[in-house]
Amino acid sequence: MSLLVVGSIALDSVQTPFGSTADALGGSAVFFATSGVLLHPVQVVGVVGDDYPMDRLDRMAKRGIDLSGVSQVRGESFRWKGRYSYDLQNRETLETRLGVFAEFTPRIPEQFRGARYVFLGNIDPELQLSVLDQVHDPALVACDTMNYWIQGKRDVLMQLLRRVDVLLVNDAEARQLSGDWNIYRAARWILKHGPRFVVVKQGEYGAVLVGANGIFYVPAYPLEQVFDPTGAGDAFAGGFMGHLASTQDTSPDNLRRAMVYGGAMGSFAVEAFSVQRFDELTRDEVRERVRAFSDLVRFDITPLPEEA
Amino acid sequence: MSLLVVGSIALDSVQTPFGSTADALGGSAVFFATSGVLLHPVQVVGVVGDDYPMDRLDRMAKRGIDLSGVSQVRGESFRWKGRYSYDLQNRETLETRLGVFAEFTPRIPEQFRGARYVFLGNIDPELQLSVLDQVHDPALVACDTMNYWIQGKRDVLMQLLRRVDVLLVNDAEARQLSGDWNIYRAARWILKHGPRFVVVKQGEYGAVLVGANGIFYVPAYPLEQVFDPTGAGDAFAGGFMGHLASTQDTSPDNLRRAMVYGGAMGSFAVEAFSVQRFDELTRDEVRERVRAFSDLVRFDITPLPEEA
Repeated sequence: MSLLVVGSIALDSVQTPFGSTADALGGSAVFFATSGVLLHPVQVVGVVGDDYPMDRLDRMAKRGIDLSGVSQVRGESFRWKGRYSYDLQNRETLETRLGVFAEFTPRIPEQFRGARYVFLGNIDPELQLSVLDQVHDPALVACDTMNYWIQGKRDVLMQLLRRVDVLLVNDAEARQLSGDWNIYRAARWILKHGPRFVVVKQGEYGAVLVGANGIFYVPAYPLEQVFDPTGAGDAFAGGFMGHLASTQDTSPDNLRRAMVYGGAMGSFAVEAFSVQRFDELTRDEVRERVRAFSDLVRFDITPLPEEA
Repeated sequence: MSLLVVGSIALDSVQTPFGSTADALGGSAVFFATSGVLLHPVQVVGVVGDDYPMDRLDRMAKRGIDLSGVSQVRGESFRWKGRYSYDLQNRETLETRLGVFAEFTPRIPEQFRGARYVFLGNIDPELQLSVLDQVHDPALVACDTMNYWIQGKRDVLMQLLRRVDVLLVNDAEARQLSGDWNIYRAARWILKHGPRFVVVKQGEYGAVLVGANGIFYVPAYPLEQVFDPTGAGDAFAGGFMGHLASTQDTSPDNLRRAMVYGGAMGSFAVEAFSVQRFDELTRDEVRERVRAFSDLVRFDITPLPEEA
C-alpha cells in the first residue's frame, strides 16, 4: 500500500551546543521519508532549486524513497537557519529563505494518485487541500500544521481538518488551534472538527494519541544524549505512517503501535544532525528500540492486598 | 509493616483560576498521609501551632492515620499562601509564615521507631538525617527535597543521600542537584551518590523511575479538569510508599507498580483544593484509576511484516 508525503525539502543550518551544520538535508518531507522508509516505501512530492545537492537525494532513493514527484526548478532551494539554547528547550530562527518553495504548488504524479496513506507535511493548508483533491481514495490521511497557518489561514485549515483522519500537532499548536490550554480538552475540540484521531506531540516528554474511544500515551525514549531536535516531529510522523502503511491496518490498536514506531523514529532523529542517524539505521535497530519502549512502560497490576 | 512520614503540617491559602481557599489543610505530611492511607496505615510526625484546627486532623485519624507523633505547641501554625497562573503552569508564593515549624525538631515516638517504610518530606536535610538516626532498621527510606536546600545545605543533603534508597524530586531539582540539564544523566549522577532509585516527577507529563537496571515511565493521568496542583508530589509519594508498605516488596517490578499508584494518587490530589479529593475517595476508585493507567500505555508489539 503506497505511502505518500507532500512537504518541504530544505537545506538546514543548525547550531546546537554540540556543533553546527550547514546546508544539511532538511524539511518535513525529507525527515518523514528517511524515517518512514525504514518501515515502508515512501513516495515524495516536493520542490528543490537548481542548487540542491541531488546526489544526496539519490542516496535516499536507493533506500526505497520514490523521488519522481520532486521537481527541480530554477532558483534557490528553501533554506532554514536556526540555533538551539544550551538545553535544547528553545530554538531561535536566524534566517528563513523560502526560495523556490514560495511558489510550490504540489502536482501529484499520476502514479502517486492511488496512494492509500497520505501525510500532508506542514505547508499552506490550501496546498494541503489541493493534494487531497488529487489523490483518489486514501485509506488514511494525516496532516501537520503550525502556528503561522493556525493564525493566518484558520478558515482553510478548518476546512482541511474535515477531510483529515489524523492531525499531528505539538502541544502549543493544539492549544492555539482550540483556544484551550488543557491538551485533553484541546484534543476533544479538534475531534469535533473532523479528525478521528489527534496526536499531540510533547517533545522531550512524549506524545499522546486521543480518539473517541481512548487515550494512549507513549513517553519519549530516555536519551542521555540529544544532539539536534530538528525534524523529530516529522520523523515521528514517518514512523507512525510507515507502520500503518506497512501493516495496512488502521484499527485503534494498530494506531497505538504506530505511535510507538513514531516515538522510536523520533528518538533516532535527535541523536544526530539532519537525517544522519537514518543513513545507517537498520530495521533491527528499529525493532530493538520498539522493544525498549515496551519495557519502559511495562508493569502488571496486582490486586490490593485485601483482594488477594 | 509500618509507614512513617515526617514533614510539614500547614495551612494553605491557594488561588487558582477556579477559586480560592483559605487556611486549608496542607503540608507534605498531610498530603502524603491522606493519600497513602488509602493503601496502608500511616504514622505522622510533625508540629502544629495552638491555632491548628485539630478536629480536621482527627478526621484524618479516623481513616488510619496515627497522629501520635504530631505535637501541638504554643504559637502560630505554618502558613503558605500562593497563586497559580491561568494555565496552572506557574505559581507564585505570596506569603510564607513558618510559625512553629521554624523550630521543628522531629522526635520520633518510641512506637514509631520500628517503622519499615520511611518518607522524609521536604524539610531541612539536617532534620531528615536526625530522623534516620532515630529509626531502627527501615526496609526502605525515600526522601524529597527542594531548591532551597540544594543550594543552601548541599553538603548535608549529600550526606543524607548516602542513607536514602529512593530520592523523589521534580525535574528542576534533579537538574539543580546534578548540574546536568538532561534528566537521565542527572538521575545517573544521583544514583552514584547513594540512592538505589531516583523518581523524577515531571508535573503534568508524568514521572520516571530510574534505577541501575532500568527506566520506567508513568505518564500523568489524562485529566480534562485540573483544579489545584498543590500537593500533587506528596500525594504521589503517599501512593508510592503506601503501595510498597502494603505489599512489603521492594523489588524493581513492585517499584514500577508503586509508581503507578503514585501517579494515580497524584492525579486525585489535583482534582480538588487541599486534600478534599481524598475525603471521600474509596479504594475502588483507586483501583479503577490504576487500571486506567494500564490502558493508557497498553500496546502489543507485532513483528515487522517481513518477520511474520
